[in-house]
Amino acid sequence: MAEALALNGVFIPMTTPFDTEDRLSLAELRNNLGRYNTKRLAGYVATGSTGEAILLSMAETEELWEAVIEATATDKILVAGTAAESTTETIARTRRAAQLGYQVALVRTPHYYRPLMTPAALEVFYHRVADASPIPILIYSIPHYTGINVEVPLVARLAEHPNIIGIKDSSGSVKQLAALVRVAPKGFHVLTGSATTFLPALMMGVSGGIMALANLLPDECVELYEAAVAKRYDRARELQDRIVPASDLLVSRHGVPGMKYALDRLGYFGGPVREPLRPVDDAARREIDEVLAALGSAATR
Amino acid sequence: MAEALALNGVFIPMTTPFDTEDRLSLAELRNNLGRYNTKRLAGYVATGSTGEAILLSMAETEELWEAVIEATATDKILVAGTAAESTTETIARTRRAAQLGYQVALVRTPHYYRPLMTPAALEVFYHRVADASPIPILIYSIPHYTGINVEVPLVARLAEHPNIIGIKDSSGSVKQLAALVRVAPKGFHVLTGSATTFLPALMMGVSGGIMALANLLPDECVELYEAAVAKRYDRARELQDRIVPASDLLVSRHGVPGMKYALDRLGYFGGPVREPLRPVDDAARREIDEVLAALGSAATR
Amino acid sequence: MAEALALNGVFIPMTTPFDTEDRLSLAELRNNLGRYNTKRLAGYVATGSTGEAILLSMAETEELWEAVIEATATDKILVAGTAAESTTETIARTRRAAQLGYQVALVRTPHYYRPLMTPAALEVFYHRVADASPIPILIYSIPHYTGINVEVPLVARLAEHPNIIGIKDSSGSVKQLAALVRVAPKGFHVLTGSATTFLPALMMGVSGGIMALANLLPDECVELYEAAVAKRYDRARELQDRIVPASDLLVSRHGVPGMKYALDRLGYFGGPVREPLRPVDDAARREIDEVLAALGSAATR
Amino acid sequence: MAEALALNGVFIPMTTPFDTEDRLSLAELRNNLGRYNTKRLAGYVATGSTGEAILLSMAETEELWEAVIEATATDKILVAGTAAESTTETIARTRRAAQLGYQVALVRTPHYYRPLMTPAALEVFYHRVADASPIPILIYSIPHYTGINVEVPLVARLAEHPNIIGIKDSSGSVKQLAALVRVAPKGFHVLTGSATTFLPALMMGVSGGIMALANLLPDECVELYEAAVAKRYDRARELQDRIVPASDLLVSRHGVPGMKYALDRLGYFGGPVREPLRPVDDAARREIDEVLAALGSAATR
Repeated sequence: MAEALALNGVFIPMTTPFDTEDRLSLAELRNNLGRYNTKRLAGYVATGSTGEAILLSMAETEELWEAVIEATATDKILVAGTAAESTTETIARTRRAAQLGYQVALVRTPHYYRPLMTPAALEVFYHRVADASPIPILIYSIPHYTGINVEVPLVARLAEHPNIIGIKDSSGSVKQLAALVRVAPKGFHVLTGSATTFLPALMMGVSGGIMALANLLPDECVELYEAAVAKRYDRARELQDRIVPASDLLVSRHGVPGMKYALDRLGYFGGPVREPLRPVDDAARREIDEVLAALGSAATR
Repeated sequence: MAEALALNGVFIPMTTPFDTEDRLSLAELRNNLGRYNTKRLAGYVATGSTGEAILLSMAETEELWEAVIEATATDKILVAGTAAESTTETIARTRRAAQLGYQVALVRTPHYYRPLMTPAALEVFYHRVADASPIPILIYSIPHYTGINVEVPLVARLAEHPNIIGIKDSSGSVKQLAALVRVAPKGFHVLTGSATTFLPALMMGVSGGIMALANLLPDECVELYEAAVAKRYDRARELQDRIVPASDLLVSRHGVPGMKYALDRLGYFGGPVREPLRPVDDAARREIDEVLAALGSAATR
Repeated sequence: MAEALALNGVFIPMTTPFDTEDRLSLAELRNNLGRYNTKRLAGYVATGSTGEAILLSMAETEELWEAVIEATATDKILVAGTAAESTTETIARTRRAAQLGYQVALVRTPHYYRPLMTPAALEVFYHRVADASPIPILIYSIPHYTGINVEVPLVARLAEHPNIIGIKDSSGSVKQLAALVRVAPKGFHVLTGSATTFLPALMMGVSGGIMALANLLPDECVELYEAAVAKRYDRARELQDRIVPASDLLVSRHGVPGMKYALDRLGYFGGPVREPLRPVDDAARREIDEVLAALGSAATR
Repeated sequence: MAEALALNGVFIPMTTPFDTEDRLSLAELRNNLGRYNTKRLAGYVATGSTGEAILLSMAETEELWEAVIEATATDKILVAGTAAESTTETIARTRRAAQLGYQVALVRTPHYYRPLMTPAALEVFYHRVADASPIPILIYSIPHYTGINVEVPLVARLAEHPNIIGIKDSSGSVKQLAALVRVAPKGFHVLTGSATTFLPALMMGVSGGIMALANLLPDECVELYEAAVAKRYDRARELQDRIVPASDLLVSRHGVPGMKYALDRLGYFGGPVREPLRPVDDAARREIDEVLAALGSAATR
């Protein structure tokens, strides 16, 4: 890298629009991106967990990657989720994303053979991918999906690799995020995946967030980030308290189906989820409607 | 189904041989199968967890499926692991396996979006697959890899579907296996995935086992099964106690890498694992050598 | 010990009767014991988990211990639960129980400072108690209450102490019980605390059970034990299947309150629980009534 | 209460000194208190988890309570840990503490019959104790010892009781602490038990901390609190980062034995722990010495 990439601020891990026939709906993707492009977001992640990446074929993945590239404003950083269980396949996907113009690869821990995915095995995995990747990589730790938490000492060792530039930690644990910040060398970015604790995480030194909630409330997330950076903590805490109910309900509880339903309600395109995910049921819709109503006009501006 | 398939006895969830270049090694597969064909095994599972299925491309999967079909003795039942995270992809794989001649599909729970994989969501998933599959399906519950345990009441409901003929439960819990047997209607097979508790599971009514250890100790596993069925429980318990150290060490502790190393030691082909799996280290090799030595001549016959 | 004590068969971990003023009700205790004395039970445990021991004062504990001694038939083995968090207090209670005539002390793992209760710390604890105790002791592992599972290698080491004569393992795991049997030296008793898997545990070599369910269904538990010992496994399995619904519902799900309600229904004295335990609610009562009705006349004989 | 008690700032959950004969050492207690009295601490907790309360007899507990009362400066708030498993016993202890002059009772969740300690059962328990207590009570949630986390909705309900004035939450989860603050009515205090995340917790609105680390580093804890309240966040974060290694090592990893060893090293009295707790071993001592050395002169002032 000639110059280090700064991963500061709010990134949207984008949802992947499907039509009613379960096909990619790139027109809707472009519409959503058109709206996001006007905001002070740092960038986008294509094919992350929120993007139902694990439910896409490789052909769909490439089609989506290309569409996102084309529709993204030039000031945004583009990140591709490139993980597969196999190391070789992960490298192949990472190279393809780099070739298409993605600037960073977000690489989730392999996890199927969980008892064998020791820190030592993960260290080899990330070194292999980082060595082979033309673009810098971010470690991706999301224990409530994978059952694997990337521990602080392993991150400290991985951070020494010149092509590993940070971690997205979705544990939601402020304790762990702060510990990661303490071991991070200069230029290594700690990003949180959890909007529920965005403010305390920022205060303890994370450089930004890749947060599903930013699909829905990009302005609030950006303003919270900016207020925290400017040390306007009272305002930051107001915003934090404001977004927590939506974060808890839509992200932690109802996941992608809740997010997509809420996007539809707020004028973005959410659309159907892909099976085995199931649409939210009537009770969940009512809860979500209430939370969105409480967010009020500010949320829909 | 004209006639119900009887899933009784010992099935081998086969390892997948790779050469030193990480390519499928079908010649070695045929050699292994040639030896297994002469034994009183009930059948084989291709592309299960022990087969590193999740690390194979679809092209490799099909190539392997074809090779297994060709090399299998006619008296063996052939099962294909066909699960993917996406329901549509799982159905596509199941149909392809059926087309090639597999008699049963083993369908692991989708699990990435774990908090959303409720019993209700899993019920829809299995109904979709069972409805679309030309061949009967087995539910596959392997909580230490997926984080999802298929609970007894869900199995009781799924067992009513005419195309769902059983479950492979790899929890190792005799309590749960016995509970599954109690709710299973006639013709619904409960198979254990754990050799460590094979005898007590058989005693409580499971119809057989799909056990990684059978790759290594097929004769012991078959003899244990036959002794239990014949109510020669003293002999069965001798065999059970005999195989436990290998089951604990090779399957529970060292997983596929331990199994492949031990296969090489016993004259089968084990060969390398695919990354991110890592070969067992020297300390593990010594432990495995000791356990194999203790098994003695009977194990190498 | 001049002669080794044989801990074979079925032991009742007795409930502790309270009157409506929350005082010990020793008359009711004697009535229950009078009925149990006529059965082929191996013995009783006073002040175990089922006896709400942790809710009794030391004065009540001693009063209860004396009453049990007086009311017990001479052919029964008497065990006292003597654990406290403090080692010194545990020793004091053990000595007191011995002085009163108890033959064995059942010593639960200390557990409040759970992260510090390592195998090494537990080893010192059990050695201290065993060294100081005038009577032999049983290790008591009940992880769903204490959060601590006494692991097999620790038991193997503790079994070498001449005054530690066995373990009550309430994990319910047949795999672990069988592993304990495999490491147990001659004269070391492995007893299960779980009626749900009594038969498979017996088959794998446990010498008996200390099972809450035996308060309620002593005859079935004894007959199951005797059938298993006599290798009449078909009859044993019938009995096992018969008692599982009651074991699951009354012991695992509703605990002491469920057990006491059911005792009242079957003509024993159950009576109130001590707070913070709460009586079972109406829905639970209906479920319990149904399970008892299904057990039918045999259960109430 | 004529006037509401303000539980703001730093409270020390005091260690309990024993001599080499395992007897209470009240002289040493007075010495420690004499030093603490000169600091800007809000108050003390006698007989909490750090005080090895669960290892004390009732006679020792009362003796200790009296000694603490006598040796405490008049500006400090005095809290007594009064929990026992039995509701009745908890009430008796709470009344005794009140009689002796304690201003608040800290009441840990009962937890032995964990599967039965549902939110509904805990609600009854806390109402019983609060109704009967002459002094206000604090809920005490310490899941890594008890296995029970007091959930936010239950706290919201309990906070309506006029005699329940707050919660000590030792989960260490900033997410949960912030959620508690959001549901807390005016006058209900949320206190953290974890020094590792004290700053982010304060930032999200907790009113103070009852933190084992304050035994060792009272000045740093107080200064951190005061800096946060004064919105001098840069200084607060310096202090937070400074105390984390000691908090992680001494509290989370080595518990009371680590704390007592470190107290001895810093010129307070730590002394022996009571069994089954074990003194820290040589390796732990070296680690602790290093962490204390790194804290340097400031820590020993």
